[in-house]
Amino acid sequence: MFTTSALAPAKFVLGDEGMYLFNDLPTGLLKERHGFEPTAAWADHLRLSSVRFNSGGSGSFVSSDGLVLTNHHVASDTLHKLSSPERNLIDDGFLAKTNEEELAAPDLELNQLVSIEDVTGRVNEAVDDDASTEDAAAERRAIIARIEKESLDQTGLRSDVITLFGGAQYHLYRYKKYTDVRLVWAPETAAAFFGGDADNFEYPRYNLDATIMRVYEDGKPAKLEHFLKWSEVPLSEDELVFVSGNPGRTQRIYTVEALKFLRDDRIPYVLDFLRRKEILMQQFGLEGTEQARRARDELFGIQNARKAYTGMLGGLQNPQTIATKSTQQAELLRMINNDASLKPLAKAWDEIASLQAEKRDMLRRGVTLRSTLFSYALEIVLLAAEDQKPDEKRLRGYTDAARESLLQELYSTAPVYTDLEQVKLADELSLLIENRGAEDELVLKVLDGKGPRERAAELIAGTSLVDVDARKSLVEGGSDAVDASDDAMIELAKTLEAEYRSVRETNEQIEERERQAYAKITEAVTKIKGTGGYPDATFTLRLAFGTVKGYSEDGEFIAPFTNFAGAYQHANDHAGQDDFDLPESWMEHEADVDGDVQLNFVCTADIIGGNSGSPVVNRAGELVGLIFDGNIQSLTSDYIYSDEQGRAVSVSGVGILEALRSIYDAKALAAQIGK
Amino acid sequence: MFTTSALAPAKFVLGDEGMYLFNDLPTGLLKERHGFEPTAAWADHLRLSSVRFNSGGSGSFVSSDGLVLTNHHVASDTLHKLSSPERNLIDDGFLAKTNEEELAAPDLELNQLVSIEDVTGRVNEAVDDDASTEDAAAERRAIIARIEKESLDQTGLRSDVITLFGGAQYHLYRYKKYTDVRLVWAPETAAAFFGGDADNFEYPRYNLDATIMRVYEDGKPAKLEHFLKWSEVPLSEDELVFVSGNPGRTQRIYTVEALKFLRDDRIPYVLDFLRRKEILMQQFGLEGTEQARRARDELFGIQNARKAYTGMLGGLQNPQTIATKSTQQAELLRMINNDASLKPLAKAWDEIASLQAEKRDMLRRGVTLRSTLFSYALEIVLLAAEDQKPDEKRLRGYTDAARESLLQELYSTAPVYTDLEQVKLADELSLLIENRGAEDELVLKVLDGKGPRERAAELIAGTSLVDVDARKSLVEGGSDAVDASDDAMIELAKTLEAEYRSVRETNEQIEERERQAYAKITEAVTKIKGTGGYPDATFTLRLAFGTVKGYSEDGEFIAPFTNFAGAYQHANDHAGQDDFDLPESWMEHEADVDGDVQLNFVCTADIIGGNSGSPVVNRAGELVGLIFDGNIQSLTSDYIYSDEQGRAVSVSGVGILEALRSIYDAKALAAQIGK
Repeated sequence: MFTTSALAPAKFVLGDEGMYLFNDLPTGLLKERHGFEPTAAWADHLRLSSVRFNSGGSGSFVSSDGLVLTNHHVASDTLHKLSSPERNLIDDGFLAKTNEEELAAPDLELNQLVSIEDVTGRVNEAVDDDASTEDAAAERRAIIARIEKESLDQTGLRSDVITLFGGAQYHLYRYKKYTDVRLVWAPETAAAFFGGDADNFEYPRYNLDATIMRVYEDGKPAKLEHFLKWSEVPLSEDELVFVSGNPGRTQRIYTVEALKFLRDDRIPYVLDFLRRKEILMQQFGLEGTEQARRARDELFGIQNARKAYTGMLGGLQNPQTIATKSTQQAELLRMINNDASLKPLAKAWDEIASLQAEKRDMLRRGVTLRSTLFSYALEIVLLAAEDQKPDEKRLRGYTDAARESLLQELYSTAPVYTDLEQVKLADELSLLIENRGAEDELVLKVLDGKGPRERAAELIAGTSLVDVDARKSLVEGGSDAVDASDDAMIELAKTLEAEYRSVRETNEQIEERERQAYAKITEAVTKIKGTGGYPDATFTLRLAFGTVKGYSEDGEFIAPFTNFAGAYQHANDHAGQDDFDLPESWMEHEADVDGDVQLNFVCTADIIGGNSGSPVVNRAGELVGLIFDGNIQSLTSDYIYSDEQGRAVSVSGVGILEALRSIYDAKALAAQIGK
Repeated sequence: MFTTSALAPAKFVLGDEGMYLFNDLPTGLLKERHGFEPTAAWADHLRLSSVRFNSGGSGSFVSSDGLVLTNHHVASDTLHKLSSPERNLIDDGFLAKTNEEELAAPDLELNQLVSIEDVTGRVNEAVDDDASTEDAAAERRAIIARIEKESLDQTGLRSDVITLFGGAQYHLYRYKKYTDVRLVWAPETAAAFFGGDADNFEYPRYNLDATIMRVYEDGKPAKLEHFLKWSEVPLSEDELVFVSGNPGRTQRIYTVEALKFLRDDRIPYVLDFLRRKEILMQQFGLEGTEQARRARDELFGIQNARKAYTGMLGGLQNPQTIATKSTQQAELLRMINNDASLKPLAKAWDEIASLQAEKRDMLRRGVTLRSTLFSYALEIVLLAAEDQKPDEKRLRGYTDAARESLLQELYSTAPVYTDLEQVKLADELSLLIENRGAEDELVLKVLDGKGPRERAAELIAGTSLVDVDARKSLVEGGSDAVDASDDAMIELAKTLEAEYRSVRETNEQIEERERQAYAKITEAVTKIKGTGGYPDATFTLRLAFGTVKGYSEDGEFIAPFTNFAGAYQHANDHAGQDDFDLPESWMEHEADVDGDVQLNFVCTADIIGGNSGSPVVNRAGELVGLIFDGNIQSLTSDYIYSDEQGRAVSVSGVGILEALRSIYDAKALAAQIGK
């Protein structure tokens, strides 16, 4: 049974639902329900000890000299980029014995949230009430660019205006950026992702999904004022814990019609897409061990998403889900229609409904070819054109405020594997044909009379964007250089630029209308149910809370904790199956490890993808765990939270310490963390 | 460059295109091009030595005492059904040292084509010229049922009326059936499918994709008059060879609009479907080694189809393909429109074009839930209802003539794995929701208020169709038993029956209109280009021919032969990769094997899926090879033949002998074959 409401202000929330804003914490609720009152200092310290990874994930500072804890699967993008056939960090793990041995990530950016400012008034004032959708979107984009630019100029901090409650609020987030990030320790994937795709999103689990990095400033380990102390005390059942991280995206505010679009159109489309890419990456990997190595990180990400979306769709396809949501929505609309002052807001639900058909039409219109080299090309072409415009008229991501982060990505020194790129590009061309039709004029132009495979080979052979220097010289040469370039990939990007802009513009107008409608829905709900809730996730810092707690499944009780002894047993139980062999280091040190030490645990905190790597802290603000997964029953939490069986899954803090000390010969590192 | 025409009478055929009817062999062409004149005796002997497998594939009689040669991958359905955790024929292979040790297949039926009779006149007479599509389809179904029933009653032979040239001709095929088929020898999958999915459809290859069975009559090895002698002479380059087998389906007759439907709708849909099932089976297999064993045979079939369709789509997405076909079609239509007597036939092309939209609409309308237990249930429900009707009014497959084959399938003793069934059924329910919409009334009825997973679990728990006896008692109890049954799967089939019939009826009407249109197209083409061609494949016996010949790829010459030494080398080259380990038997006997003996070879014969297991014979009619694959360049041959690079891939006859003698300790068996 599901236990939440469509939009959920605190007092209507049951269980431990909620991903709260750090500038609007549920203090009353926490006090009432858990007898805990977070002080401002407690919250500020936790916020400033938390970081966001631009590779998509969360982390925390865990020492005064710059150590950062995150998941292995958040770090894996970097591990992959730092690997070569000769140095396979993914298979073999890594430990730097000295600072000198630490490996610099080629394109990581870590963000520490320094301040939050509500700029809703300023944004709304700048948008004319009577403006057309197009104008409103342009005005909003302009004021946001202006606010961000001003803030950047004034503070030097990364400044992002975040849209909250679907468009009811706008907050300016200022981040301190760390771009010199180095790898300190990573376990073998066999330990981090023990059980592989089979165990992913399952529980009980036995995964050491942890990696430690270090942030540097001016070439030296950063001196940090805020970092988490590390608890050496095992967790207890029912213990209250907090999660500080960056949940990526939820759709709790979604109306019934919007959920139906997910159920009937978007998720089935995405799943077909993901399965297609999964098979593609598998097939590439079959060509040889080196090819398998090259495809592996992407394959893992695809499989992870495929399993998550499968769970989401399963929940939505259960007729009870929509029935429950429909009942809640009907009740809400009844109350709104009974109140003359609110009644005009009811139209927002109709607007959302009518937008779904437009969103459906756009599903197959995109022209972005998902390959690293094409992305580089398109970004270079767009940047050259956007640079010709005043800052406020530019596309999001191409403003002055965003430039540094964009260049960080464009100038990445990560290897680009052209064989893999070619296979991906061929498939993207094939998908473009399927989506837009084989006789679409643009498609014919793109193919240039060739089949997808032949054309992809030609494009890869004709581009020099593999070289960072080639990218730099095009960026620095600006629109003249881009215009003059006969690089095949740049030419392809120029061919697609106009349609890319048109599709993006249409999508942004749909988003604008959604924002306006959801802002009205939020207004109506707030008026009926009161304030104090939390907005849908936006890959920005949130606080969730919950208790350490097992659950029942098929009549059996699943205990909240697993331990090291269980890991060895699990390997035994699945002997001979892929991904169930513990690495050599674990086998060698089996006698050294205390089997009773907690390895993984579950709690009821409300999390979602993007929370991976989030620190779990106790009342004292000490690190006790590291979020790395949700169980299969939590996969519906994109649109509905339930603590009946849904759980967040973490590596326990004491487990990481035990592994560092007893398995990884990393006592010195273990001694540094938390200090 | 493609080198064939839309519909291809012999004199317009280039290269060695063609899958010829045994009652219309290209004798003139063979004489002219290859100086070979097949006698009637030669052709009859080859036809009567050929068999068709109801599991989908071809084979040949290779000894006087009933030995049958086919592919391991054709036999794998049977190997899988005969396997258990304790007896893993798929992994370990099999050799019966005595007749008593031979293992009876649970549901195989082999068909030997005894005679062919042209019944076009009789079929066409029975169909009223002015009949509505619905009536025409019914009339045609009725006359076909009558012809088949009469033939069965008169001869006792399986009698099938085959629709040829898209509907321009109808031939009555009479088959002798063999239903007591036993396994004699199978190699390990590691040898048969060496290189796995990676090497599938690739060349050079090194696969021992062969299995030997034996047909029995009255409990004794069948005494066969017709069987193939087995050549001990290695093949030579450019040697003329013949393939006698049952190509499944081609679309060479297809108009440009019909090909566009394949390109834009059908194949993308099928590929999404296959990738979905591939991931599903993989996921099931991840649960454990026994689960992997259970899913393996189906997974292989899915992967094989996915790779084949990917190749087909790649060809169609090359703008040149449709351009070539369009030019040919335009030229043909120009000639037709210039001839007053033919001009009316040009409308057939418009009819085909307009049918494509209807076919597109039907793609997602089906309600057949692909699971063994649901198939049993639906067949039982349909059979009970059809039995109430006169024979001529029944659905195809439910007539008296078809009954024995249907019961052979329904009473199969092959194990049914309910865990696998449940996973498949859950996915089919999910797909049904996606295809028909979550609010479709029938879908809601099927789900009964539950999600796909929960509903599938309930259905599997509530059916007893796993037991052969339960199926028998329902079949024998007829409609009374079916009406009274509260078996969950039978009830589900009853719920879906009406819609199944409606969808089937619509599809049959579309097919009827296609038949009528393609018959006209055939008429027009024949009048312009003359007779002597071959009809599209219909999973009935055909003769193809070609020469043993290498080809060029990326500027390199690919030799036509591989040998045993190459197999060991290939294993070495791919050490550490999945599916590239030769089995123990091969490693143990490496010193015993003559490395120079031919293992695989390619030729230019025109084949397609269904030809798997076909014998390849020389001018003397002796077996020299065993078709098992086409190379990747041949995957477009569904709709266009090319011998520039496209090749059929075979195991060489001498290679099979060498393996039996030197690796499998099966000298006695080797001594029997061909004798």
